[in-house]
Amino acid sequence: MIDKNDGTARQFTTRDNLPLVVGVDLGGTQLRAAVLRGATVISRVALLTGENPEPDRVVPRMFQAVRQVIEEAHIAPDQVAGIGIGAPGPLNAHTGVVFDPPNLPGWKDVPLGDLFREEFHLPIFIENDANAGALGEYMFGAGQGCTDLVYLTISTGIGGGVINEGRLLDGTSGTAGELGHITIDWRGRRCNCGNIGCLEQIASGTAIARQANEAIAMGKGDELLNFALAHPEQDKTANTPVDNKIESITPLHVNTRIVAQAAQAGIPLACEIIAIAAEALGVGLVDIIHIFNPEIIVIGGGVSQMGELLLEPARRIVATRAMRVPRGAVRIVIAKLGTDAGLIGAGALTYYNT
Amino acid sequence: MIDKNDGTARQFTTRDNLPLVVGVDLGGTQLRAAVLRGATVISRVALLTGENPEPDRVVPRMFQAVRQVIEEAHIAPDQVAGIGIGAPGPLNAHTGVVFDPPNLPGWKDVPLGDLFREEFHLPIFIENDANAGALGEYMFGAGQGCTDLVYLTISTGIGGGVINEGRLLDGTSGTAGELGHITIDWRGRRCNCGNIGCLEQIASGTAIARQANEAIAMGKGDELLNFALAHPEQDKTANTPVDNKIESITPLHVNTRIVAQAAQAGIPLACEIIAIAAEALGVGLVDIIHIFNPEIIVIGGGVSQMGELLLEPARRIVATRAMRVPRGAVRIVIAKLGTDAGLIGAGALTYYNT
Repeated sequence: MIDKNDGTARQFTTRDNLPLVVGVDLGGTQLRAAVLRGATVISRVALLTGENPEPDRVVPRMFQAVRQVIEEAHIAPDQVAGIGIGAPGPLNAHTGVVFDPPNLPGWKDVPLGDLFREEFHLPIFIENDANAGALGEYMFGAGQGCTDLVYLTISTGIGGGVINEGRLLDGTSGTAGELGHITIDWRGRRCNCGNIGCLEQIASGTAIARQANEAIAMGKGDELLNFALAHPEQDKTANTPVDNKIESITPLHVNTRIVAQAAQAGIPLACEIIAIAAEALGVGLVDIIHIFNPEIIVIGGGVSQMGELLLEPARRIVATRAMRVPRGAVRIVIAKLGTDAGLIGAGALTYYNT
Repeated sequence: MIDKNDGTARQFTTRDNLPLVVGVDLGGTQLRAAVLRGATVISRVALLTGENPEPDRVVPRMFQAVRQVIEEAHIAPDQVAGIGIGAPGPLNAHTGVVFDPPNLPGWKDVPLGDLFREEFHLPIFIENDANAGALGEYMFGAGQGCTDLVYLTISTGIGGGVINEGRLLDGTSGTAGELGHITIDWRGRRCNCGNIGCLEQIASGTAIARQANEAIAMGKGDELLNFALAHPEQDKTANTPVDNKIESITPLHVNTRIVAQAAQAGIPLACEIIAIAAEALGVGLVDIIHIFNPEIIVIGGGVSQMGELLLEPARRIVATRAMRVPRGAVRIVIAKLGTDAGLIGAGALTYYNT
């Protein structure tokens, strides 16, 4: 049990003489590990989580990845100050138990913290991946110098991490900050989480791809489909959210990246789909501003790499809908650490907790 | 400036030997003040805020109310450890400036803290009224023994106050916790705050009365109107939310309390309106559970006095929509301090801050 009441987290620059740590970022698609000194990556490894990510298969691969990065960094395990793990929520950061993440089928109440402690005999810290990203951006990224930060990660799903007065908001079971699962359309579509009309249902990468593929299935997407066929992806294994269910129904499908590229090329259906996602994102940002009155909202995750295509219309929603005072106090920016925010933040858990 | 990083707020029982404090609860309708020892009211006064609540008129009345309760408590001013004020937000709790509350027309960036300090030469603490209510319930009410509490007050509007690990969530400008202004219907009706589809627009007392009066204006409310005429209110000055705009259009109007009574009597239109408000409240509770993962949600304000009529269907929404783990961790209860939560909490600001 970690008592976080003793003080606020410190912020560092990479020039500080920080101890070496290991960060592990467990995603639904990829498993990454690194030896880090602050935000500096000493060694790193990335593996696919695999199609059957049961804990019996994935946890040993996590151990293996950690051993590999320690070896590649040419250090002894006892030179590592701690191992921090960012994993899909919901999970309890205090007990290190991962409950039942929608993005990790087969996981149910896995005592990941204890399993790592038995394997490595090092201090082990766990947070959900969005909290880890928040910590990374707060300590080493866009949020340096701020005390009130909200991190929103948009990829397959949408996750949130909240830093309030220098502390991670955990809640009583460690599941606070599920900002992808705030309701913006109370009589809308059911979300994987069981709720209805969640932000994630409209603005995530999965939602963007789903809307495109639904339109294609209804015969309204010929222009988009032709664009996709004319722009084959360079890297089919890239971390682009695709709705697997739809993939299995229609062999001709598009993913989020193609929709974004098509929107940039001015294809009307793609523009419309991105406009809807951006509007929903703007509504989510208004909610975050009203709820937390943060200094900065940092937007990360694969979908955030669309940049201003998504952010500019979302900012316009904020300008017209959010209350004057908290609106005037907030900056909305893209993650400075990019897709490494969660990995660097996982490593930073050792600095935060010790 | 108050540094709240030094420790968490303590919780007391009324048996503790607490210093005397003054609490002031400034509402859009009523201004109340009390000398308190913990949750025990030594003396109290209540005045109407008046139809023209400009600061030039209201602030001197606040001073007068404070002098009066001190006099009636038979104590000298220097026996008071501090004066705490709960006022409508948005305001900055750190600087004591009240910005532009929709429920206090004519107020704009009023330095209420400084004005009180000049008048009384005592420690002065200010919070928005919902934060004061949260503190009251946390220290002396339904939240005793909890560290993570959300207070939702439903009356004319809907306000929120959040206690996380024993600390009030203030945000960077002191406006955090505006839980009435989270969007649940992103393409719905515009709210007074400028946002669209706020929880307050659907579930507040004003919203309940508005929907009833709109139905009456469209000729669909004869049964409800007959019920209202057969059940004249005993106390016309009671603090029941009424939409004044509609009042001026149709002389035959009903207020929130009548709608609740009619729903209890089984009048279909009233049942339908309360069902909509309860559904929206349930959606708001799901959002609060996903965002904060609190131990307890305390519901206060005049509309909460409907009790199970509103709460039972809202709890059913929570049971079907909220995520398993945080749903299992939360209790949803009515405020123990009733309509005194904000007044007792205003007094408790001195305990919290010193």
